[in-house]
Amino acid sequence: MTDHNISTTPVTLLGLGAMGTAMARTWLAAGYPLTVWNRTAARAEPLAAEGAKVAATAAEAVAASRLVVVCLLDDASVGEALADADLAGKDVVNLTSGSPAQARARAEWARERGARFLDGGIMAIPPMIGVPDSGGYVFYSGSGELFQEHGTALTVPTGATYVGENPGHAALLDVALLSAMYGMFAGVEHAFALVRKEEGIAPKEFAPLLVGWLTAMSGAVHGIAEQLESGDYTTGVASNLAMIVAGNPTLLATAEEQGVSTELLAPYLTLMERLLAEGHGDEGTAGVVDLLTR
Amino acid sequence: MTDHNISTTPVTLLGLGAMGTAMARTWLAAGYPLTVWNRTAARAEPLAAEGAKVAATAAEAVAASRLVVVCLLDDASVGEALADADLAGKDVVNLTSGSPAQARARAEWARERGARFLDGGIMAIPPMIGVPDSGGYVFYSGSGELFQEHGTALTVPTGATYVGENPGHAALLDVALLSAMYGMFAGVEHAFALVRKEEGIAPKEFAPLLVGWLTAMSGAVHGIAEQLESGDYTTGVASNLAMIVAGNPTLLATAEEQGVSTELLAPYLTLMERLLAEGHGDEGTAGVVDLLTR
Repeated sequence: MTDHNISTTPVTLLGLGAMGTAMARTWLAAGYPLTVWNRTAARAEPLAAEGAKVAATAAEAVAASRLVVVCLLDDASVGEALADADLAGKDVVNLTSGSPAQARARAEWARERGARFLDGGIMAIPPMIGVPDSGGYVFYSGSGELFQEHGTALTVPTGATYVGENPGHAALLDVALLSAMYGMFAGVEHAFALVRKEEGIAPKEFAPLLVGWLTAMSGAVHGIAEQLESGDYTTGVASNLAMIVAGNPTLLATAEEQGVSTELLAPYLTLMERLLAEGHGDEGTAGVVDLLTR
Repeated sequence: MTDHNISTTPVTLLGLGAMGTAMARTWLAAGYPLTVWNRTAARAEPLAAEGAKVAATAAEAVAASRLVVVCLLDDASVGEALADADLAGKDVVNLTSGSPAQARARAEWARERGARFLDGGIMAIPPMIGVPDSGGYVFYSGSGELFQEHGTALTVPTGATYVGENPGHAALLDVALLSAMYGMFAGVEHAFALVRKEEGIAPKEFAPLLVGWLTAMSGAVHGIAEQLESGDYTTGVASNLAMIVAGNPTLLATAEEQGVSTELLAPYLTLMERLLAEGHGDEGTAGVVDLLTR
């Protein structure tokens, strides 16, 4: 494959939300022939002015390229949009958010229609697309052949990380990282609430303390991983559950004093107390993972 | 004050748990005359062998030095241990964990007894004490004079950050950062639970993805701080509540598919849904802070 061929691999993109539109612009800017389709056609107009071919139907868009990237609202929209399309011989890359089971079912659905299938989980927000070194990337799982063949086109919008043949793994890793992030945000917003009404502690002064602390403490994640693999939750524990739980009343009392609801904090403290009550006082917090999956 | 004087400032330390013991060793190593007391006297024996003077009572320990560092189990223990001590003219530095209200009450209690008072919140675990560049530090608040006079001695065990005259602020910042960390750990452990039983995703492979993602996303904390100060929660929002909440069913469905309890995840999703229902779809998540403090 020559450079000429690479830069002219035609791409079809279904779905022009904020993410799809941002991706479309990167392919156009890189010189890829791009065919787009969106249910609400008006969204395609600016891209047409920038050189995209606008298809009247999803089926027509699919017919235009072997590589078909799908970035719709949800998995049901994917089935609807592609109901009449001929997928035989196509390489379908599904960036639509969904659960692992939806991704696996969609992979089977594509296989039955004669297409190769790759599922993607986008670890970026639209402003990061097309920005070099933004830190954004897409998890891909499913057909390794498809990924190898179209890797160059797929890395135009943002980074790409292939995580194996199981088509559900990209979605699973995507959801797992998002869930972890919401936990962090929940903690961060509880912390801001605690200092919110306190004179002399401005949010912008507090933010760097918070970021520095969370960044330093995120290193503990490696220790948790090690414990989960070894099954020994006592090794390398600097602060064990007995010590941690002894501090819970102070955390709850402080929330009470500052007039802050404990609804985001209490569930985690409760799980640590359950572990302690079950005799795990000399362990770290890794046992919470087991409590959640019981 | 000469170097000679600095290194011979006598220090009294009450409380030889893991943290107190680690701190004691750093003062001994740096050549400070150190008097220690612990309710269970046996804990002082190794330190005596290393050069510490062991007092028979807390009152005797307090009498030995002007600078009295207290690192006990909880605030009640501080009152009990110091009930018979003469605190007149003393500089009391309380590193015992407690709430902001407890710290303020203890400052008043010390003032009534003729002592200057500084409260501390330790942002470190014992293995970080005495390790240069460990990233650990202590928040101090209360008497700025005391902090200035004894800053050299106080920075021997680990870093020191003075956060103002309000004696409750060190404890408040301590609790706020700990609470944020537990939120992050809750998210991390939910994420590990999601991938726990999945073949082909080992915890140690998943951990770097998680740390990289959380580190990158922690930058959003500065944006939240800016929004809280301006009161405009729509500015600079790359992913608004309408978009975020649209993804909630996928997060919950994935937990269900993987057999993971949603008890740590659901409360935050519920608050975001409440904000959306109240008409904040074009905002980021900063409104959660207000919901928590309503």
